[in-house]
Amino acid sequence: MFKIIKKDECTGARIAELSTKNGIIETPVFMPVGTIGTVKSLSPFEIYDDGFKVMLGNTYHLFLRPGIDIIKKFGSLRNFTRYKGMILTDSGGFQIFSLAKFAKVKDDGVSFMSHIDGETHFFTPERVVEIQEALDSDIMMQLDVFSGPEASRDKAEKDLDITIKWAERSMSAKKKDGNLLFLISQGNFFEDLREKSARIMSGFDADGYAIGGLAVGETKEIMFKMLASSASNLPENKPRYLMGVGTPEDIINAVSLGVDMFDCVMPTRNARNGFVFTSSGALNIKNSKYKSETGPLDVGCGCFCCKNFSAAYVRHIFMTKEIFSQRLLTLHNLHFYQNLIVKIRQAIKENSFLNMLNKINMQKPSSLF
Amino acid sequence: MFKIIKKDECTGARIAELSTKNGIIETPVFMPVGTIGTVKSLSPFEIYDDGFKVMLGNTYHLFLRPGIDIIKKFGSLRNFTRYKGMILTDSGGFQIFSLAKFAKVKDDGVSFMSHIDGETHFFTPERVVEIQEALDSDIMMQLDVFSGPEASRDKAEKDLDITIKWAERSMSAKKKDGNLLFLISQGNFFEDLREKSARIMSGFDADGYAIGGLAVGETKEIMFKMLASSASNLPENKPRYLMGVGTPEDIINAVSLGVDMFDCVMPTRNARNGFVFTSSGALNIKNSKYKSETGPLDVGCGCFCCKNFSAAYVRHIFMTKEIFSQRLLTLHNLHFYQNLIVKIRQAIKENSFLNMLNKINMQKPSSLF
Repeated sequence: MFKIIKKDECTGARIAELSTKNGIIETPVFMPVGTIGTVKSLSPFEIYDDGFKVMLGNTYHLFLRPGIDIIKKFGSLRNFTRYKGMILTDSGGFQIFSLAKFAKVKDDGVSFMSHIDGETHFFTPERVVEIQEALDSDIMMQLDVFSGPEASRDKAEKDLDITIKWAERSMSAKKKDGNLLFLISQGNFFEDLREKSARIMSGFDADGYAIGGLAVGETKEIMFKMLASSASNLPENKPRYLMGVGTPEDIINAVSLGVDMFDCVMPTRNARNGFVFTSSGALNIKNSKYKSETGPLDVGCGCFCCKNFSAAYVRHIFMTKEIFSQRLLTLHNLHFYQNLIVKIRQAIKENSFLNMLNKINMQKPSSLF
Repeated sequence: MFKIIKKDECTGARIAELSTKNGIIETPVFMPVGTIGTVKSLSPFEIYDDGFKVMLGNTYHLFLRPGIDIIKKFGSLRNFTRYKGMILTDSGGFQIFSLAKFAKVKDDGVSFMSHIDGETHFFTPERVVEIQEALDSDIMMQLDVFSGPEASRDKAEKDLDITIKWAERSMSAKKKDGNLLFLISQGNFFEDLREKSARIMSGFDADGYAIGGLAVGETKEIMFKMLASSASNLPENKPRYLMGVGTPEDIINAVSLGVDMFDCVMPTRNARNGFVFTSSGALNIKNSKYKSETGPLDVGCGCFCCKNFSAAYVRHIFMTKEIFSQRLLTLHNLHFYQNLIVKIRQAIKENSFLNMLNKINMQKPSSLF
């Protein structure tokens, strides 16, 4: 199911293929975030056609709106959204603890108040698997407890124990064949807890393992220390998915530590705020120097935006708050990420990944992209 | 330049071809509104590919943002926006009197304060032609005075006299060949002024004639009475353009009075508010009955939205304020208007236009679309 095609000789990087019921995912992979069933401003066809074969959905959001019963009528989230690729759904654990109100963890599950209408709901690990089976997600995530960046060691340890129990229960709750289930290793910012979590989770022989609770405000140094503790203790022969990370530099560094899968709102959210990734570094479309720039945002970029429109036009419609600008910038930023992933894969194939990693860490990203 | 292909035997409806420097416009035609250089939420390719060969731009808005100097660098608004079709630019007269502040008419022009930053500007008829020549619009409009729906006869007459003077000056101001110039007949809600305006304007032998100042709050009865007074006194051998109108029913009725060209924000603005035109009447996407509707918004509709997505999905992403919903609904509503125009042309060709007109006025629009 997870076949490693090529291992980098010098780092933990690897190229692999993860088989799902709806196709094969080539890793490393970046998955755009389609929280509620759409990657903001784009059509599902645009995403797929730009090479993104996996999209993220979010159990918490989809459970609240439109509700699972409605999606059930379509047989799957895939049918509902008309996305031709594969879908990974997050369990909603993170959203319950960061977005919903009054999340209260009990042994058997977590109660919370919807951020939309204040209604109280109760999620158990079993219910969350059941919902994702109803969504017919290609990859499902277990319900986990997110302790938050400020959590004490005591709280982190308690939450971790619950997450481990819920991992086991999630595995048992699985009823349908074909939908993969990933467990989520946690441990906050404590290396030994990260190690413990990864080791115990590894024993459950899940289809894959996520690393959660990172990129929530900590320094890069701490993030990568924690990531290393998690990743190095997760099984070599299973996909590793770093949730919610990150910058292009983060992704390259995480790949070197053996991470295979990524998702992040950065390319899409930044686009909507006018922050643009380019081969010569990030730019802010609001900068007046683009006012009369007849060339594209990024010379040589092959995205729909750069192939067709000038920076001046994109800036003009961004400054006048035209919706079409968000679409153009989102397409551009996602294309940049896709291009990054293609280059990472190529570098691993050609044994030049260490070179790429060194370059990025020497602070010369412009020579890379 | 304006070739009438077929005249309806029973009404004023006709099919014609208007030649511009960038192509031939088949009339009757509906032109989507791309105020500031983009039809809200859509790419210029989507509009063109759905059959819309003319897009509207607005001189007032484009003058303020991005500014004419920037568009000049691209040679034309067409190059700036990358729209492959033809562009008609409104003069900005209506916007100066309805959107800008402190519009003050003098003999030689009008001063106003930008609604964006409060800066004061001064437009003369000559300057407005000059700006539109810089935009290289296929069809330019003269600067006119919009009196507002509440204007007294005295004011309406005064404004009309100024508009007539400005028409003459606009004609003389034209420096470039190839850009068509349309004059705007006015006269508020006074039939004799409408007639006077149309008759005098006709004497200037312009490339085409617009009918302005309608659909600004008056009853349908008054609107059509005024329209008839204007249209019947404009030359038969020139295109007639009814500005800012209207509903599908309005368009059919106006075509019967000899109107050839239309623009309106209705299909696009309604879309963004969730109001959808369908073959069985208008619908509001917020209506809960679409919550679990697995079929399209309009069975049989061939638009991108209806071909690909269920009403339930569109409703879901509309209710969650996803940008993509605005794009889907805009595409749908515009396609509906395009389809309407195609049916009008076909009816004229097949001598069944009177039948169409009668049907629409018998309040059975659903049997038509």
